[in-house]
Amino acid sequence: MSNPKDVIAAARVDGTRLWASLEQMAQIGATDKGGVSRLALTELDRASRDLFVSWAREAGCTVRIDRMGNIFARRAGRNPAAAPVLTGSHADTQPKGGRYDGIYGVLGALEVVRTLNDANISTEHPIDVVVWTNEEGSRFAPAMIGSGVFSGAYPLEYGLSRADSAGTTIEQALEGIDYDGAEAVGGIDVHAVYELHIEQGAILERSGHTIGVVTGGQGQRWYELTLNGTNAHAGTTPMDLRRDALAGAARVITFVEELGRRYAPHGRATVGMIEARPNSRNTVPGECFFTVEFRHPDANVLAEMDAALRDEVASIAQRAGLTSQLAQIFEYAPVDFAAECIGAVRSAANALDYPHADIVSGAGHDACHLARVVPTGMIFVPCIDGISHNEAEAITQKWAEAGANVLLHAVMHSAGASRVV
Amino acid sequence: MSNPKDVIAAARVDGTRLWASLEQMAQIGATDKGGVSRLALTELDRASRDLFVSWAREAGCTVRIDRMGNIFARRAGRNPAAAPVLTGSHADTQPKGGRYDGIYGVLGALEVVRTLNDANISTEHPIDVVVWTNEEGSRFAPAMIGSGVFSGAYPLEYGLSRADSAGTTIEQALEGIDYDGAEAVGGIDVHAVYELHIEQGAILERSGHTIGVVTGGQGQRWYELTLNGTNAHAGTTPMDLRRDALAGAARVITFVEELGRRYAPHGRATVGMIEARPNSRNTVPGECFFTVEFRHPDANVLAEMDAALRDEVASIAQRAGLTSQLAQIFEYAPVDFAAECIGAVRSAANALDYPHADIVSGAGHDACHLARVVPTGMIFVPCIDGISHNEAEAITQKWAEAGANVLLHAVMHSAGASRVV
Repeated sequence: MSNPKDVIAAARVDGTRLWASLEQMAQIGATDKGGVSRLALTELDRASRDLFVSWAREAGCTVRIDRMGNIFARRAGRNPAAAPVLTGSHADTQPKGGRYDGIYGVLGALEVVRTLNDANISTEHPIDVVVWTNEEGSRFAPAMIGSGVFSGAYPLEYGLSRADSAGTTIEQALEGIDYDGAEAVGGIDVHAVYELHIEQGAILERSGHTIGVVTGGQGQRWYELTLNGTNAHAGTTPMDLRRDALAGAARVITFVEELGRRYAPHGRATVGMIEARPNSRNTVPGECFFTVEFRHPDANVLAEMDAALRDEVASIAQRAGLTSQLAQIFEYAPVDFAAECIGAVRSAANALDYPHADIVSGAGHDACHLARVVPTGMIFVPCIDGISHNEAEAITQKWAEAGANVLLHAVMHSAGASRVV
Repeated sequence: MSNPKDVIAAARVDGTRLWASLEQMAQIGATDKGGVSRLALTELDRASRDLFVSWAREAGCTVRIDRMGNIFARRAGRNPAAAPVLTGSHADTQPKGGRYDGIYGVLGALEVVRTLNDANISTEHPIDVVVWTNEEGSRFAPAMIGSGVFSGAYPLEYGLSRADSAGTTIEQALEGIDYDGAEAVGGIDVHAVYELHIEQGAILERSGHTIGVVTGGQGQRWYELTLNGTNAHAGTTPMDLRRDALAGAARVITFVEELGRRYAPHGRATVGMIEARPNSRNTVPGECFFTVEFRHPDANVLAEMDAALRDEVASIAQRAGLTSQLAQIFEYAPVDFAAECIGAVRSAANALDYPHADIVSGAGHDACHLARVVPTGMIFVPCIDGISHNEAEAITQKWAEAGANVLLHAVMHSAGASRVV
């Protein structure tokens, strides 16, 4: 393997080292049930950041923190003027989260740097291993605020002023854990972005694929609906005199589910929250509030789903003698990842001979913000039974290693890898 | 009108006096919105009882209180050994109740006594105007406990030991307002029972009838259901991999509503309470709890509805990949009122030339307990828009007068009225 090209093609991460790092990091905020509870910008988040920073420095990186607390651990490139390749994810978790959501993409990226060091491979572009602040949104809303400010979706002042339920702002919380960095947020040239993440769904595992080549992110539309009828005595009110808001909602819920199926395989349609009022066993509910959310990678399909929902709600309400209020409260346009990044991921998976399939991300990720401004790609690995945002979240060491190998080769491709001889 | 029979046939209540009594009583616990809040065995309930007792004594009645706090105000009959005709209802209200639910039947019965006094009409049987304790069940569960103990549905010890949410028992609360009577509860001969009540539904008003001749009470079956699937990410979980408990519940709710319609006009089928878990906008609900209640006057139909529900829940759960738990938590057999009492009510409405129709009570009433042990009838008058258990509950003075006139003549019939000359 004296040929530099052969050395680069043969480069592989150390799956055992990666797994050990994941295990060690999972001790910070470990729960009794084997999960992790490490909310953004808490003392536990500080501990996880400190551990990452110490490992990154051991791997020779230079660490910078920006004003949103985003961490950039740079492995220098051959050309100091070249724009960096960014790769990473987040270290915060849901209140009862798992050991891999987010942190796998951070430690996978760190493993890429360690592997390049071990193999004496240099890159033309610097590589920044990134930890994005407050991806989960569990403590501070909205989610993905660190990457959102970085990519210009939100102003810095907005990001710093977001407050948790106790009234503590992100700015205050960053000071509290000494991650209130001095660097400007964003506004720099970025050559490419790669994010490695667990799928958080069951598609890859069911279809037997180890690698998901993420082609984009679903667009989303979220709604709040209220149907109003009349509270009525369940015993004295004949069926034909009722204006039953919950019965109306039930028909809408069934329609929403069928609408999601109509746009298979990418369509998602969910009623996650419902509240009937007065919510009494022997009173016909006069009011029902519920939420609807649609996801699809095609904005035109989302517009069709929107129109179908509005028509059907009006029709159901009219037939049931109800009034309806339907408000779209959130919209997120579909994201298309960059062809060159998708191609680099697919080529890496091919070269490494991993079973892979194209996939659309159903969840939001930091990469979705970045994709709107710089060339971006994502790599998914399966998670067992699709379970995520749950202490039972699990992946295999083989999957972890495969995803990091694909990331390694995609990053080497974009960063311009050479053997240092 | 020197003919005693003509005098009896011509007897009419004083609608103005009845209305004035209703108005005065409605001041006790009056709410800003024109309703009444007078929970059982509170100081306000004591005040309403005291006012009733003072009025009954002014009307020449002898007042007895039993150990459940039920009040019996007796107008003596010609035959001291004859079993009494009982007529009355309750004085307690819902937390935000109306001015007529219950108390109309009490003051209508008092108006009957006043009218008999004015017209010098005696009866063979004594007439007991009754106030039953804790009909609403809002403070102490179960509802209708005073009449329930009186008619043997519950032991006395059970009735006295029911506690409110603060832990105060009915026995303690009765002592607290000095209505812990000495009389035994029930165990006496009763000649007939009549209860006058607002319909608490919209059937009579819609059909243009002033009087409802109540032929019986609906049987009831109450259920609790839980469907279990899997909590899943609304973005990453394709429709065909979901086990959505709320979507399953929606299909059951639609089926329940259709089942009620299948057994029109008497069938009632209601889902009043629902709780989806985790009840998060972007999580497919893995669990859904909801209640179902059926009502029908025919026990065989209730058994059919029960079987249909069980079949459909099993089928929906199976198709949706859910597990189901279905428990019947309450059953109340249909009540048939006594033919002679129904006949007396119908004859009175005919003789008085009030538009009337047979009706089945959808709600539970004290009369339903009594009907299981003694000949019992009920009279309904409409209430505006069917609104009850609501501060907006309303009736017209004409309806109030009509109902009391029917009660007067039904009671005179059963009690054996004669002119005192």
